Amino acid sequence: MSAIPSDGVRVIPLGGVGDIGRNMMLIETEEDLVVIDSGIMFPSEEMFGVDYIIADTTYLLERRDKLRAYLITHGHEDHIGGLPYVLRDAPAPIYAMRLTHGLIEVKLRDAGLKEIEQITIDLATEYGFGSISAEFFPVAHSIPDATGIALRTPAGLIVHTGDFKIDHTPVMSQPTDLPRLASLGEEGVRLLCSDSTYADRAGHTPSELVVGEALEQILLSAPGRVIIATFASQIARLQQIVDGAEVAGRTLFVTGRSMEKNVKMARELGYIKAPEGLIQSISQHEQFADEDVVIVGTGGQGEPMSALSRMSVNDHRDVTIRSGDTVVFSSSPIPGNEAAVNRTVDNLFRLQADVRYVGGGAVNVHVRGHAGQEELKTVLSLVQPQDFMPIHGEYRHLALHTRLARSMGIPEERCHLLLDGAILQLTAETSEVVGEAPASYVYVDGLTVGGVDHTVLRDRRHLARDGVVTVVVPVDHQTGQLAGQIDVIAKGFVWMDESPTLQERVEEQVRQAFDRDDHPVEWHELQNVLRREISGLLYRETRQRPMVLAVAMEV
Amino acid sequence: MSAIPSDGVRVIPLGGVGDIGRNMMLIETEEDLVVIDSGIMFPSEEMFGVDYIIADTTYLLERRDKLRAYLITHGHEDHIGGLPYVLRDAPAPIYAMRLTHGLIEVKLRDAGLKEIEQITIDLATEYGFGSISAEFFPVAHSIPDATGIALRTPAGLIVHTGDFKIDHTPVMSQPTDLPRLASLGEEGVRLLCSDSTYADRAGHTPSELVVGEALEQILLSAPGRVIIATFASQIARLQQIVDGAEVAGRTLFVTGRSMEKNVKMARELGYIKAPEGLIQSISQHEQFADEDVVIVGTGGQGEPMSALSRMSVNDHRDVTIRSGDTVVFSSSPIPGNEAAVNRTVDNLFRLQADVRYVGGGAVNVHVRGHAGQEELKTVLSLVQPQDFMPIHGEYRHLALHTRLARSMGIPEERCHLLLDGAILQLTAETSEVVGEAPASYVYVDGLTVGGVDHTVLRDRRHLARDGVVTVVVPVDHQTGQLAGQIDVIAKGFVWMDESPTLQERVEEQVRQAFDRDDHPVEWHELQNVLRREISGLLYRETRQRPMVLAVAMEV
Repeated sequence: MSAIPSDGVRVIPLGGVGDIGRNMMLIETEEDLVVIDSGIMFPSEEMFGVDYIIADTTYLLERRDKLRAYLITHGHEDHIGGLPYVLRDAPAPIYAMRLTHGLIEVKLRDAGLKEIEQITIDLATEYGFGSISAEFFPVAHSIPDATGIALRTPAGLIVHTGDFKIDHTPVMSQPTDLPRLASLGEEGVRLLCSDSTYADRAGHTPSELVVGEALEQILLSAPGRVIIATFASQIARLQQIVDGAEVAGRTLFVTGRSMEKNVKMARELGYIKAPEGLIQSISQHEQFADEDVVIVGTGGQGEPMSALSRMSVNDHRDVTIRSGDTVVFSSSPIPGNEAAVNRTVDNLFRLQADVRYVGGGAVNVHVRGHAGQEELKTVLSLVQPQDFMPIHGEYRHLALHTRLARSMGIPEERCHLLLDGAILQLTAETSEVVGEAPASYVYVDGLTVGGVDHTVLRDRRHLARDGVVTVVVPVDHQTGQLAGQIDVIAKGFVWMDESPTLQERVEEQVRQAFDRDDHPVEWHELQNVLRREISGLLYRETRQRPMVLAVAMEV
Repeated sequence: MSAIPSDGVRVIPLGGVGDIGRNMMLIETEEDLVVIDSGIMFPSEEMFGVDYIIADTTYLLERRDKLRAYLITHGHEDHIGGLPYVLRDAPAPIYAMRLTHGLIEVKLRDAGLKEIEQITIDLATEYGFGSISAEFFPVAHSIPDATGIALRTPAGLIVHTGDFKIDHTPVMSQPTDLPRLASLGEEGVRLLCSDSTYADRAGHTPSELVVGEALEQILLSAPGRVIIATFASQIARLQQIVDGAEVAGRTLFVTGRSMEKNVKMARELGYIKAPEGLIQSISQHEQFADEDVVIVGTGGQGEPMSALSRMSVNDHRDVTIRSGDTVVFSSSPIPGNEAAVNRTVDNLFRLQADVRYVGGGAVNVHVRGHAGQEELKTVLSLVQPQDFMPIHGEYRHLALHTRLARSMGIPEERCHLLLDGAILQLTAETSEVVGEAPASYVYVDGLTVGGVDHTVLRDRRHLARDGVVTVVVPVDHQTGQLAGQIDVIAKGFVWMDESPTLQERVEEQVRQAFDRDDHPVEWHELQNVLRREISGLLYRETRQRPMVLAVAMEV
């Protein structure tokens, strides 16, 4: 890979392009480098035991002397959750809006990273980083203080939308700054990187306003307590609940550690405004009449430890669901969470609650946080980019977003449908993929970062499917012959009933192996032979393939 | 539980009430018993290694002397897949429509159950089973020959809808027989058991007609090959594809064993009608021009071994996806399959295919096979049942269906929101749950039926999350002291790098346990102590909890 020309820039997505989550992008010139976002991704179901996934930062670490800043578009986990990991090895100042800093600060404190400079940006101010400068502009999203970023580079202007939708009547934050996008478009945009999360949805995402109305209606009409589940980071939604509670004359009770922490932080920073006394401690709520109570907590995704999941199985310290309760899912299941959400809904119905959720017809209790096709086209038409790169999406979202861009007249060779790790190099006129940066999944599992790899996950999948059978064989260290009782232990595997039992036949199989004159004496080889023969026997008899561990123990 | 009164009947769901799948219901009088359906259910993601789930038939087996017949509503797996298991222990004649028998016959042959009598029913004929008689009536569903069943019992008329929707213009089968439902209603229905699968969907499911139109449009306009994925049992959909192929002048190629088998069977029985030469062998298809080709196969659910999944990863014997191909998902993901379907869509886009799927805006390439709320209300208003039992649904579906029935004026005490195993006893006037039949999940895993239980699944979940660490400890059989090298093997678990390595520290922990004067000498206790101490060490150091197997080996 040749050097970056002095009039060039490299755009390198390390996460979020081909996946939903662990968003991270590098903007690199000959002399300087800035990072946009550093998030986590939640594991898919076959990534057993993995807590979450962060981006591979090898390419960045090799260039850390050029690193000038982290520019963070907003405070969601998939944009800030990776910061504690990357900052340890590649520290640099963080530029972001105030609420975003509030959310980042908690993480840095937990990780013992107190030295990192946090710079609260002004909108429309241009921040210089050598050959790169950056200006943040407001966008509407499901969290306040969400932004996009316009970057001036030697090759021209790059516009990165962050996560956005076009909501002309957002609840707390500013609407997406369409006039600014238009003036950037007039100035001439070299490359547009635009959010593809809902590029498969026709039309226009409804405004957050309809959610406020729907929630207020429920708070006014529900006969008993109202319990609302949403994300702890949905600050604007929380404000709507505060407003609805005030109108309906209900007192608000917040449950759950993350929700309490965020409400406290958001009130201190002035993001949530509630009249004196409207919010009270959850432990007090039984002293109020049911029709005067609204409770808010996490659990809209069916997360096992969340407030709502606990309530749904009668395992919450403060709240016992009963007939007359109305439970509202002010959320929609993230793909992969459907089963867990359905289970929670089922359990709540079973406890006699009236459950309102998008899938059950209560369509307005939640709206999406990302742009649909008409909004994406609006941005394309305002920005009129020379080149286009769909970001934040799985492959089909990127493909459908590209189809939209093509339909808006951007030529095929100007549409860069790339995947994480692609190194797109731009000059004023040319655009070309010049190489590939490492971009594999880095798994975080407990305290292990990067230790879990494909082998470990393959073993876990194997163990999950059919369990493990351990066979311990005592071998005489002088003669190499079997020297005692064989020990067979199965976990997650079923011995079928038969006579002689299958377990006895495993032991017999081992004895037979030793009876053969040519049985291997070398340790490793012996274990392999035993493993293969026992696996074969078990498969023939049960049509299952447990992991077989044969341990030859010298005695 | 007291005996059944001579004027009474028991209605006992053994599957499909509180779950989607493994549908099975018993209708039992003092003297006689008939079974409606016997299906399988597919496992949810946390039931590791399980192939599928069948109903617990203990209650039936205890009364097999009263068993008169199996009445099968239609030929889907969740209604017939359990037959080979239950027929082995409780044989009885099977009553069903012709296509349903065609699908059952294959299963019975595979299971070596040749003695079972298969009786092809006439619609509107009443079949007598002692104190019970049964009349089948046609319903529209996503497979031809779908029926509901009206049963005359000492306590009155029971109407069981089977799986249905109200489609006035179905493609091959008869529409749901609303006039018959109305006349049954006039006669007086004691109990209505009605399909709840889509009780959460407002409105009316569109007719299969719109799918035919959408597919024809694609077959006419697509520039190259068209590849359509659907279920092998979707005989009507296959006929629509045949019709569309004919209109568009394309030749149809069928790929995949189950699809080929079903097309062959359906043509032989006269269900699929295709002009001579329209259907050709898949191995010939490259001899045709791309715009003259349509290929049909399974894979609409992202099933790993299906035709479409193989094509999506370039692993299909006959078909290599290329630019210009149009791939149609004439299906929608069953809950739980979303991730697999999305992965297949992504991979097909990556191979440059144009992909049409419901989630990507091609809404008419598939319609649901079950009734929405307006259809459910229509049936309730025609049948006017005295009592109501929602069936075929998870709890929320049953709850929402009950809400509909309540809104139609059925009193609360006449709505029986039950779960599998409930024994509902009816007389002409009374209705009461009198007991509970065993209704736990029976897991089929390889050749094991019922062997996999909660303990096995709990172990598999544990293994899946953090793997297994096996520690083999040689112990002197005379002194009870450590007598040689400790062997430590980890699978699916990560040793973090440190010094001394964690693995060495595990060995050290074992040695320390033996150094203590009071260390247990009893085998089982010793292994427990070692397991507990090693687990504790690993958790402290890694925040992971692998399964620890400590094997003390006497030497």
